[in-house]
Amino acid sequence: MTSGAPSGDAAPRRRGRPSRTQSGSGPATRDRILDAARDEFSERGYEKTSVRGIAKAAGVDSALVHHYFGTKEQVFEAAITVAFAPALEAPAAIEEGPLDEVGERLTRFIFGVWENPATRAPLLAIVRSAVTNETAAAVFRRLISAQLLGRIAGRIDLPDAELRAELAAAQLVGVALLRYVIKVEPLASAGVEQIVARVAPVVQGHLTGA
Amino acid sequence: MTSGAPSGDAAPRRRGRPSRTQSGSGPATRDRILDAARDEFSERGYEKTSVRGIAKAAGVDSALVHHYFGTKEQVFEAAITVAFAPALEAPAAIEEGPLDEVGERLTRFIFGVWENPATRAPLLAIVRSAVTNETAAAVFRRLISAQLLGRIAGRIDLPDAELRAELAAAQLVGVALLRYVIKVEPLASAGVEQIVARVAPVVQGHLTGA
Repeated sequence: MTSGAPSGDAAPRRRGRPSRTQSGSGPATRDRILDAARDEFSERGYEKTSVRGIAKAAGVDSALVHHYFGTKEQVFEAAITVAFAPALEAPAAIEEGPLDEVGERLTRFIFGVWENPATRAPLLAIVRSAVTNETAAAVFRRLISAQLLGRIAGRIDLPDAELRAELAAAQLVGVALLRYVIKVEPLASAGVEQIVARVAPVVQGHLTGA
Repeated sequence: MTSGAPSGDAAPRRRGRPSRTQSGSGPATRDRILDAARDEFSERGYEKTSVRGIAKAAGVDSALVHHYFGTKEQVFEAAITVAFAPALEAPAAIEEGPLDEVGERLTRFIFGVWENPATRAPLLAIVRSAVTNETAAAVFRRLISAQLLGRIAGRIDLPDAELRAELAAAQLVGVALLRYVIKVEPLASAGVEQIVARVAPVVQGHLTGA
């Protein structure tokens, strides 16, 4: 290793921009750690995942994981922010277009994310970790409050906008839980259009109804 | 031990009715095992709980747990049936009284169960286990489909009655998840009446609406 790049053995120091081509540092390594973190948290859940395990899966030293992200909680937050990125596009889906169709746009958007296996897997992992671990729940809460529900509430110029956004989210989260996690029939096998037809008006009602 | 009562050391055999007063057998022991099972599953989740651990907590031999309940999956089913008993009274809440008030009765009933810490704790444990383990999810699915949603659907004489019951349940489950598990604000601190006022019409709409 050349000087300036984080060492695998000592506490990492970073001076200047590390070479992109060099293994063990740079944006590519950061991304590799994030991928490994997402996989580890998905497979093992929050509690059983360790920074050491993430480092091993990414082929780097634990110190490098701490260098880029900090504590396990901070690695988790970074990993779920990436994994959750598709869902965090939801506010854009409601910020554009007429307000009286916001329920359908948001509902279609959320089901689009869940129906795609590539985006469903990390979502499942996050929900599982958040349901079973207080620290993971706090990270998840912060993320959805600030980046998702807060922005949706901002679009609705009504009293109780935040509570409205949360009740709409509750309907969508509940359907996702029963359909994709618990797999209750006939909900698990019903067509998306049939569900959207029943759920979108409820979401609209929560957001803008009387 | 007298003959006829299950022995703690050998494979259990049960001939005739064991004495109620005798430690290690009888309905009191069965209940003690169920209590221990509920506590173990609550604290550790489905995967980390063992029949051996349940037996130890109940002060009996593992063979006795198998004798009364069978496999770990069957112990789990028995434990959650007991823990879930308050929620399973919900169909009665909707079977009585006028159909156009069923949404409010069901919503109030479910929040009554969740607001009571004594009934909330075992519910939380079940939800956590069902979300993180496939076997636990299958048990949970069987239980709520047969005993809860099926009976609610039976009361609604409409096409898609089962899907309607599940979408209503999804709204209630989603609110419970965000309020009691993830604890998103302002939903977590909102008064029950404020939530019921918004959620009951949605539940009613799912069950009997257009």
